[in-house]
Amino acid sequence: MIIARVIGNVVSVAKVNELRPVELYVVEFYNYALEPAGKYEIAIDSIGVGIGDYVLTCSGSAARMSEITNKMPSDTTIMARIDNFELLKKEIKEDSALK
Amino acid sequence: MIIARVIGNVVSVAKVNELRPVELYVVEFYNYALEPAGKYEIAIDSIGVGIGDYVLTCSGSAARMSEITNKMPSDTTIMARIDNFELLKKEIKEDSALK
Amino acid sequence: MIIARVIGNVVSVAKVNELRPVELYVVEFYNYALEPAGKYEIAIDSIGVGIGDYVLTCSGSAARMSEITNKMPSDTTIMARIDNFELLKKEIKEDSALK
Amino acid sequence: MIIARVIGNVVSVAKVNELRPVELYVVEFYNYALEPAGKYEIAIDSIGVGIGDYVLTCSGSAARMSEITNKMPSDTTIMARIDNFELLKKEIKEDSALK
Amino acid sequence: MIIARVIGNVVSVAKVNELRPVELYVVEFYNYALEPAGKYEIAIDSIGVGIGDYVLTCSGSAARMSEITNKMPSDTTIMARIDNFELLKKEIKEDSALK
Repeated sequence: MIIARVIGNVVSVAKVNELRPVELYVVEFYNYALEPAGKYEIAIDSIGVGIGDYVLTCSGSAARMSEITNKMPSDTTIMARIDNFELLKKEIKEDSALK
Repeated sequence: MIIARVIGNVVSVAKVNELRPVELYVVEFYNYALEPAGKYEIAIDSIGVGIGDYVLTCSGSAARMSEITNKMPSDTTIMARIDNFELLKKEIKEDSALK
Repeated sequence: MIIARVIGNVVSVAKVNELRPVELYVVEFYNYALEPAGKYEIAIDSIGVGIGDYVLTCSGSAARMSEITNKMPSDTTIMARIDNFELLKKEIKEDSALK
Repeated sequence: MIIARVIGNVVSVAKVNELRPVELYVVEFYNYALEPAGKYEIAIDSIGVGIGDYVLTCSGSAARMSEITNKMPSDTTIMARIDNFELLKKEIKEDSALK
Repeated sequence: MIIARVIGNVVSVAKVNELRPVELYVVEFYNYALEPAGKYEIAIDSIGVGIGDYVLTCSGSAARMSEITNKMPSDTTIMARIDNFELLKKEIKEDSALK
């Protein structure tokens, strides 16, 4: 999954029936320093989000592995809202056997 | 899904039988500022679009999750026409607990 | 799908059984201005192509949605030969309601 | 699969039920010289890892091919911890029949 | 599929059970001029390869379409060893009806 932020929405009248029941959000992808990464997707919401929320989006066939998106044409689904995000790079001791 | 614009079409006589019933469109991908993003796909139409329309395209196995593309070799399907597109970045208050 | 051109072939004796019945072609991806796009794939042919042909290739799980590639380890399949390709950008009137 | 390093974790209260039982880790992708490659994913752990571990991550539908991620919305799963990594480029004799 | 070269291997003790029976190789991707393309994957071998071999790798769900990788978490599988590789660009006559 990728960290993303909900920044807009899309209204569509002419669409396939499978997409009728859902809201479509514009999500902007972020890097792990929480800066915009220059990419976006139109995502289906499966948890109930609001504009400005930091979320996790799932792509590929895994985007259909939630109750709501089960049989939907979703290639990017919002699966979680981020409550806390912790980078622990400083704790890593560089005595790794690999290097 | 990605925002795209229908900019052309492709005619093919020699093709697999699965593709016989459908129209093939050239769609150019757009960023969320509604500028061309430098990428394209040949997409199958599942809603009835015209040249110049802004649409949403779905990729991967999700491209087969519409009635029309159900058993088709489609890796990019037009799933919706965009009627309204709203970026709400300005409304986002930067007092997010995450940052 | 992507526009590609058949530019070579690959001979392999040691391969998985699933690939025994098919020809493997080198296809170079093209942009929609019909210029090489700097990418290639080794593709399975499902229609009968020749060197120099412009074709449409399908990727992902959709690459297995033809009679020939049905149960094959194909991640890129040639699905159609292009007979005519028409860009209609000039016809697009820039009075779109979106912009 | 790609070489990655576990560098952080993500806490989420509002998430789809399918993600309740698992830990979500931030993994940074590495190149084969064991340097950061500038990409990351939020991955599901299927073996029991710790911060700083070098691991192998699997993406796409294959990310669900472990006992733990079987029916989960995972597009990136940690499948193995790397104990030893050996580049053998120097042993390659450049008398290949191909070149 | 992509042309790749086997350049190393990975040893892992802590891994998911599904990966127990297989060897994991480092494969470097090549362009069609047979030069390294700056990308790599950790691949599962389904034919029996050696260090230095030029091979074809299959990605996505197609990576599981061999007898060996059938139910494995493999997103990149070695499907064939390349015996002969022939670029036929010079033979292409530029009187294509498309251009």
